Formats: sequence, C-alpha cells, structure tokens
Amino acid sequence: MRLRLLVSYVGTAYSGWQIQEKPKPPPTIQGALEAALFRLTGQLVRVHGSGRTDSGVHAHGQVAHCDVPDAREGFDWRHSLNAVLPHDIRVLEASPAAADFHARKDALRKTYAYQFWQDRRFLPPQLRPFVWNCGPLDLDLMRKAIPYLLGTHDFAGLRNAGTDVENTERTLLDARLEQLPPCEFYPPHAPMLRLAVTADGFLKQMVRNMAGLLAACGQGKMEPEQIPAQLAALDRRAVPSVTAPPEGLALVRVEYPATDPD
Amino acid sequence: MRLRLLVSYVGTAYSGWQIQEKPKPPPTIQGALEAALFRLTGQLVRVHGSGRTDSGVHAHGQVAHCDVPDAREGFDWRHSLNAVLPHDIRVLEASPAAADFHARKDALRKTYAYQFWQDRRFLPPQLRPFVWNCGPLDLDLMRKAIPYLLGTHDFAGLRNAGTDVENTERTLLDARLEQLPPCEFYPPHAPMLRLAVTADGFLKQMVRNMAGLLAACGQGKMEPEQIPAQLAALDRRAVPSVTAPPEGLALVRVEYPATDPD
Repeated sequence: MRLRLLVSYVGTAYSGWQIQEKPKPPPTIQGALEAALFRLTGQLVRVHGSGRTDSGVHAHGQVAHCDVPDAREGFDWRHSLNAVLPHDIRVLEASPAAADFHARKDALRKTYAYQFWQDRRFLPPQLRPFVWNCGPLDLDLMRKAIPYLLGTHDFAGLRNAGTDVENTERTLLDARLEQLPPCEFYPPHAPMLRLAVTADGFLKQMVRNMAGLLAACGQGKMEPEQIPAQLAALDRRAVPSVTAPPEGLALVRVEYPATDPD
Repeated sequence: MRLRLLVSYVGTAYSGWQIQEKPKPPPTIQGALEAALFRLTGQLVRVHGSGRTDSGVHAHGQVAHCDVPDAREGFDWRHSLNAVLPHDIRVLEASPAAADFHARKDALRKTYAYQFWQDRRFLPPQLRPFVWNCGPLDLDLMRKAIPYLLGTHDFAGLRNAGTDVENTERTLLDARLEQLPPCEFYPPHAPMLRLAVTADGFLKQMVRNMAGLLAACGQGKMEPEQIPAQLAALDRRAVPSVTAPPEGLALVRVEYPATDPD
C-alpha cells in the first residue's frame, strides 16, 4: 500500500531532508522517518520526499510517499509514526495514495516562507531557530524588487553549485512580503518580515538566494532595477548578495493535481 | 556599580534559574549569567534573580541584579553579555540601578503565562517546548473557576513541597484566559489557550498547580464550585488535579515601584 505523508519538522537538529550514505550518517529527516517505519514494520521502507530541504531548514507541510506492507491495512500510521518519531518531526497526515502517486514527480507547485528579523541588538531566543537576523530592511525597496522576479525566468543565477539539473527555467507564480504582528512580550521592535514564494519548482538554494537578493535591496546595497541584468548573467557569481542562512526558511506547502474521488 | 538586568530565556535546556551546588552542577540560567560575567570581568559576580524558575520554565522578562566593577563605567553590558551568553539566554536591558535595588525583595508584582494546547493528535513541533498538550478544554468552565482564585487567599494548597516559606498568603490580582490566533500553517485546530496571572508573589509551583486546577475544570474532572473548599484545606494533597508540566510556563514580567528620576 502506498502512503502519502504530510510532515512538519523543526530542521535545526538535522542535516537536511536527505539520507547521506556515510560511515557515520548524520541525522536527517528522511533517515528519522525510515527508522520509525523500520521500528513499525521490521522492514526497510524507502521514503521519497517532494524535494530535499537543506540542513537547518524547516517544514510545515513537506509531502512524501512510501510503500508499506499491505497486511497493515486499517493501521493508524499517523499515530504510530508520531509515537516513535522524535518530537521535532511530526506526521500531520498519513493517508492511502494511488499506487502511482509520486511525491516529487507529481508536485505542481511549492510554497516556501522566509523570515527576516530586523533588530541586530536583540533577537527573542524563541525565534532564533526560525529567522535571519539581518538588521533593518526597507520594505518598500524590497517590494519594488519583487516584480522583477515574478514570472518565468532562467534562474541559474540564483542557484548554488552542487546539482546537475539541466533545465534551470522556473516560473515564480507568487511572491509576497508582509510584516508580522509584533511579539507581544517584548518592547517595541521593528516588525518581523515574512517572504512567501510559490513556484512550479525551485533550484538548489534558490529561495535563500532570493531572500538574500531582496535583503540586499532592502539594505540599500543593490538597486531593484539591477535584478534583470543579474538574472540574465545566469551565474551565481554575478549576483553580489549573500545566500540567506537556512534557519529563516520553511517549506510551507506542496500542491498536487486534484485526484478523482474513487 | 549595581546593574539591573532584564533577561529572556528558553528554559528547555536548563535545570531552572538557580545555581545548584553539586560536584557536577547542571546548567542553570543564573550559572550561565555568572559564567558570562566572569568572562567579562575575571571576577565572580553573583547574580540575584527576582525569583527562581523551575527546570524547563521560560522567561520573557526575568529581572536580576548584580554588582559589577566600577571601572567598567560606560561599558555596554547588554551587548557584551549577549556576545558571550548562549543564544537561548538574551539580555534585553542592562541598566545602572540604585545601590540598594534588590531584584527579589523590591518586586511588587509578577505576571506568568501558561499555554495549553488542545489537540492530543498533533502538536506543531515548533510549539512543543512552549505548551502543555492536555487535550480539549471547555473555556467557559475554566473561566467560571477563575473568580474563586482571584483575591487574597492562603494558597498553601497550591504549593508543592520543598520550600520553607512561612507566609503562604498571596493576592492574585489578575487572571485572564484567552484563545490565541490559530497557527496559520496548520489545518484547522482547536485554538491554543493562554492563562496570564498576576500576583504580589507566587509560592513554589503555584502557577503550575493553578494551571492544573483550571485544566481539570476545563476537562470536566472537577467543578469550579469545589475550589474554595479545596483551597481551604491548605493541603496540596486535598487538590486532586495535577501540577501542569513546566514547558507551558513563562515568567512574563516583574514589576517594581517607580523610581524617582535622578
């Protein structure tokens, strides 16, 4: 039976989603899920995610699939997995899927969120694992930059090295930047900013490079008008902004084609 | 020079506020602050908190005082302390105080918050260190219980063993229970509840016992009308509800008499 999993995790303690084949494999989300499935089934059940998340990156709604023994029909996979998983990884849903459902190949759209904190002098300790403390940002300048990124582009310039993906064209369907409500417990501070981006797919570290690019605009280090030329260079080295750190990033949602009711 | 510190911490990794004199002392907030001050001054600087917080309890605004070498006048204590403290402890303010300011003896009022999560099947991993996952609660029943606790009472029945405080009378000045906005990233769930209580002082684990008592009312295990008789018994064993776990609790604010401007 094929299972579709909806998974939420705090990525701080993990070396990303994907299992690393090393003599001493570091902790990974996929590894933790496969270890939990081994405890429940006594078998190696391979877990296929919608995509990798980097070391330290979080997810509110990562999607994965795996094939579990049929004999377990009626078994409460969600409850059982949560009972044996570490507490920083939680299964929100575990439902039977079509035999050919594929978490990565079938994904239509993904949405990521990136959080910016604007006070270098104080970062609430509760928020530290979830934000980039990059100092003050000019929201208007950042918002001016967004239209240059929307739509279909070759995003090779916002891809970090280390993948052999051939087609680097992606369509950025939506990008929004909003101020979050203040943390009620702390003295008045500059609001936290959250970027939410939706695309038909993302290249390696593309969201973190986009966040770095927008922050550079918001810090006045770059003009939004420079973005088209930098994208057109198709080279990460042509883009002077930094790759934003992983802790600010979370995979929010993966969307699939609607399935016909049985 | 006497310093007044306003300190925020995530208590998860600490055995509470107070230093424990043991051969292998466990990590504590006070210990971390004194270690940071030792790094900055080369001296043992004793840190006096407004009160202890238990193992695993958090603070948004703990207040403490300490005496630092006069020669450091003009030194940026806040910045310097944050540079050497672990990231789960942050100094919000470090300001010169009157020579006789005493964080514990001068405190007029304290406010604590306690957070209840109502879905046993799913707890967002980000929230786990900060809530008690106690299942569904009836907010109206809990709110009915609050008037029985407000005002001046002998709260010996809500005190856990292990202190030799003689006067167990305290005045509960305010107690509010509110629903927090939903976690935007997750499917519809029962709202999180937050209890905020203000008193002239609290006995050992009094807030956690109060949270347990209110939860028992909200779960229908106890009638709010039973509270006065149980308080009057002046014995923790007479109160059937549990001591709520520490992770839901945070010290929000400590209030002091207004000081005259110099």
